[in-house]
This record gives sequence, structure tokens and C-alpha cells, in this order.
Amino acid sequence: MFAARLEDFQAAAARIAGDAARTPLLPAGITATGREIRLKAENLQPLGSFKIRAGANAVAMLGESLKGAVATASAGNFAQGLALAARRRKLQLTVHAPDNAARVKLEAAVKLGARIVEHPFADWWRILSTRQTGADDGAFIHPVAEVGVMLGNGTIGLELAADWPELDTVVVPYGGGGLISGIALALRALGRKVRIVACEIETAAALSAAFAAKEPVRIERKPSFVDGIGSSFVLPEMWPLVSRLVDDVVVVSLSEAEAAVKTLAVKHHLVAEGAGAVAYAAAHSDRCGGKHVAAVISGGNIDPGILGAILARN
Amino acid sequence: MFAARLEDFQAAAARIAGDAARTPLLPAGITATGREIRLKAENLQPLGSFKIRAGANAVAMLGESLKGAVATASAGNFAQGLALAARRRKLQLTVHAPDNAARVKLEAAVKLGARIVEHPFADWWRILSTRQTGADDGAFIHPVAEVGVMLGNGTIGLELAADWPELDTVVVPYGGGGLISGIALALRALGRKVRIVACEIETAAALSAAFAAKEPVRIERKPSFVDGIGSSFVLPEMWPLVSRLVDDVVVVSLSEAEAAVKTLAVKHHLVAEGAGAVAYAAAHSDRCGGKHVAAVISGGNIDPGILGAILARN
Repeated sequence: MFAARLEDFQAAAARIAGDAARTPLLPAGITATGREIRLKAENLQPLGSFKIRAGANAVAMLGESLKGAVATASAGNFAQGLALAARRRKLQLTVHAPDNAARVKLEAAVKLGARIVEHPFADWWRILSTRQTGADDGAFIHPVAEVGVMLGNGTIGLELAADWPELDTVVVPYGGGGLISGIALALRALGRKVRIVACEIETAAALSAAFAAKEPVRIERKPSFVDGIGSSFVLPEMWPLVSRLVDDVVVVSLSEAEAAVKTLAVKHHLVAEGAGAVAYAAAHSDRCGGKHVAAVISGGNIDPGILGAILARN
Repeated sequence: MFAARLEDFQAAAARIAGDAARTPLLPAGITATGREIRLKAENLQPLGSFKIRAGANAVAMLGESLKGAVATASAGNFAQGLALAARRRKLQLTVHAPDNAARVKLEAAVKLGARIVEHPFADWWRILSTRQTGADDGAFIHPVAEVGVMLGNGTIGLELAADWPELDTVVVPYGGGGLISGIALALRALGRKVRIVACEIETAAALSAAFAAKEPVRIERKPSFVDGIGSSFVLPEMWPLVSRLVDDVVVVSLSEAEAAVKTLAVKHHLVAEGAGAVAYAAAHSDRCGGKHVAAVISGGNIDPGILGAILARN
């Protein structure tokens, strides 16, 4: 199992200081049952999500060994963070994407200088699993199961610990597992006893299913506006890590997620994408537990039309 | 003229630390003409606007001399900030409001424990001008032309100076003049040469008219969704101060303000009210000038329906 020392996370924080923001931890009130909630506003990062931390740390760690080129397999989110970091270091990035990826996310990576190679989904999944792109297009950086990625994501854990000594619970959206693992490992490296709660949307709750079955199982995934998290299968190479690091999983309904998007905008003046709103909803749920609870608002890239429609509803 | 020393602002910053947040200064890109823009996100304050700074500082400065009661004249925004600060210090707040004030803002103050007394507009304006409420309801704190208010607002200037050594221009929404004066005086006290740019909405540009006439003149004010700034007349007691402190005024159109609301939400993931969006629009305008420009996003309290409608439009 990947074991990182505190100094590894601290080195990552120093490495990404020029790329990523040190985001604020914003007070979000106290629930009726006396639980204090704060929001780690990763939606205020450049490009609007935490991905810049991992992207920047991964390329900076590889440093001169990269010889000018780097590759990844991504449906778009990680590709953007990596593309920005690569451009700043004058590295050519090749993104291997599934042919069902959202156009708008791939186009954003192209604008940042990335080259896109599309593959049928099965071929793309094979690249993600084997890290073999079939081309000599540079060092491969896995979007999730990568030391540099988890160290980059772990810098969030360092900031949470520094900003809130009383923190006892952190709620993290579960996508591929890289975000929650990085944060959990950083808090452990600091010697902080903090409950690690993963959150999922009801329509794509693969982690919850894996915990029930005690191993990754294939589930039916229904697409929704919560497009940044949720898969049909927990990445097998992440399961040993997340099954040990995650204390609990809270599954949020679509209507809870929509209400959270609205409350975040109206009350806290933050635009959050579905995944970030799921963390907010989970943190407010009594299913989450804890007294001092930080919710990681992982990103803000929500379609304006969807946000507008949610705001217009009661 | 009110002259504050640096230590007065520093004392205010210490005084409000438990009430107000130290808000982030967020990078917002570089314009086509090479001007770097950053956003002072006062919409992330408790209650969603900068007003908590002034309210908290004003009541904390008066301290024990208050004898349990305090009064103000406000149409709602300042009343909320003052109400929160007063409640924390167990002070009874009486808010004298014009009878055309927005219900929702007065109700928010009531929820925070304030008592509301409504007056016909002319009577209310007399209270605002004379500070005589006609009742023995505690020390009167003026929402704008008050030392404690300007010192509280000035803490924004201290934070801007600390966070951005290269800052050369700050753009501030012009309502009553207390926000821009506080920020300008704090930057002067620090010895920082920063251009002070006021911004207004085209439908209520009283300051721009006053600069043209070299004295406050009455203008026609059309109501719009930009309800936090703009009046029909520059407060005469603020004119000597603002006419010396303000270097320039940028007037923004309603369509520019709407576009700024949308861009702030979609690109920067911040919900801003009209006044805050006006600062964003003005900072991006070539009419503003400067190379390192901070826009004060003064608040985030926009009607969800209005925000939804703006997001739904192209």
C-alpha cells in the first residue's frame, strides 16, 4: 500500500504553490443537531476544481525526466488540470480520451495546448488499466492511482488540518478515489484522527456497493447532472487503499444534490458542480456524523443552464 | 476631514477578527490589453457582504459606553451587519427604516434580533442626516459617515495591500461612500499609491454627476436589479471626503452588469449581487485603467430568480 510521509505532502505543497490556490475554508453554519460545517472551496481554484493540485504536482515531480512530453488517460477533468500545469512547463501533453467524453471538457484541454487522441471506451479503459498508450508519447500520468496525484490532492488535507484544529470529520466526493485517498493519507501523516467520509450520488454509488459486497462490484450507473463523480465500478487498484482509509459512505439523492446546489449559491454565494454539492448535502445529513465537519466542494464547473434551472425552482 | 492613522485600521482589524472573515483575493485572469484582475471576495463574508466589517467595528469601538442599546438608520444592508454584531454582544439594536425598504432585508435583521421602526421616506432621510431618532434608543451609528464604519471598511484596504504588493488600482462600488472612503484611507495610511476608482450603474450614477458638476446634484434614479449601490444624491457630508479620495468613476451599463453576474458565476464560481458585478465589469473595462487591478465584489445577495434568469440567457 502506498505510504507517504508528511514531508512528501509538504514538498508537494511547495511544488504547486505557483499553480494552485490555497483555497479558503468557509464557515457554513451549525446544523439543528449542533454540527458545525465548513466548506473547503476548491471551486475557487484556477479552472474551477481541485484537479490543478494533482496535475501540477505530478508534472513537477517528474521534472526533467519528462523530456518535454507527458500523457494521460482522462475523460476531461484531470486533463484540464494537467494541461495547464504542462503548458506552464512547456511540456506537450497527450490526452487519451474515451469517445463518449464531454466535448466541452476536451475542448478546454485543447485550448490549453493538449493533443487529444480518442478511443472506443473499452480501449480507453484498457489504457487506464495498463498505462500502455501504444505510442511513445511521454511519461504516463494516471489520473487517480498515481503517487504524484495523491500527494497533490493531499495538500488539501494539510490545509484543512492547519485551518481547523478541531476538525473531526471530512466529507469528500468519491470519483476515482484519488481525492479522498490523498486527503486521508495527509491527515494520517500529520497524526490527525479525522473520520473520512466518502459521498456518492444515488445514481452511481459504486463505492457504497463495494463496501456492502466487501469487493468492487459492477453496478448500474444512471447519468445525471452530477457528472464529476460516480462510476459503475470501483477501480480495482484503488480498492485496497480506499477500503482501509474510508470510514463511511453517505449516499445522497438527486433532489438533495439539487437543493445543495441552490443553497450553496443563495446562502454561501458559491457556484458548485454536482459533486461539490453532494459533499455539502452529505455533510448536513445526520447520516454523516461528526461535530466539526469539513465538506470538500471539489469543483464549480456546472452547466449554466442547469444551474439557472435549479435556481428558478422552489 | 476624517484622518485615520494606520494603527486605527490595524486596531479595527483586530476588533472584528471574531465577526468577519479575512476574505480571499482571487485571481481572475488577464485582459486582452494585459491588465491583471483579482477579486476581493466580500460576498464570502458572513451574511454575504462587507457590511459585517463596519457593523462589528462600530459596535466594538463604542464598547461599554453603549449601555446595552444601539440605533441606526438603514434600508437593510447595514442593519443586518450591525444586527449580527450587536446580537453577539447582547446589545438591543433599533433600526430606523424607510417605509419603502425591501421586506426581505428588514426581516433578516429582525431574525438577528433587531427592532424595526418604519418612517415615511422624508422623515427617514432627516434621521439619516441629523442622527436624531426622536427616541432614547441608544447610541446612533451612521451607516456610512461614521469613523467606526470607515475604519471597519478600511480593513479591506489592509488585506488588499498585504495580499498584492503590485496592486495599483482598486475598483469599489459606490453606494453611500463609506466603503470606498475606508479602503482609500487605509491604503493612504499604509503609504501605498493606489488609484481609487469608484464604479456606478448607469441608472443611478449620482457620483459621476457630482464630479461633472463639482458638487452633489440630484439625478433621476431608475430602480434595477443593481439595488445595493446608486442613489439620487451624493450624501453631502461624504462629498468633501470622496471628492478628494476618488481618482476616477467608471459607469457600467445594465447589460454589462448582467454579463458580469454571469461570468462571475460561470467562470469564477462566485455568486455576486449587482453591485459586486458592477465592480467586476468596471475592472475589465478599458475605461478603468491600471495594470494590477483589484475589484471589490462587495456582496452576493442577489435574488435567486434574477440570477437564474441571467444564467439562462445567452
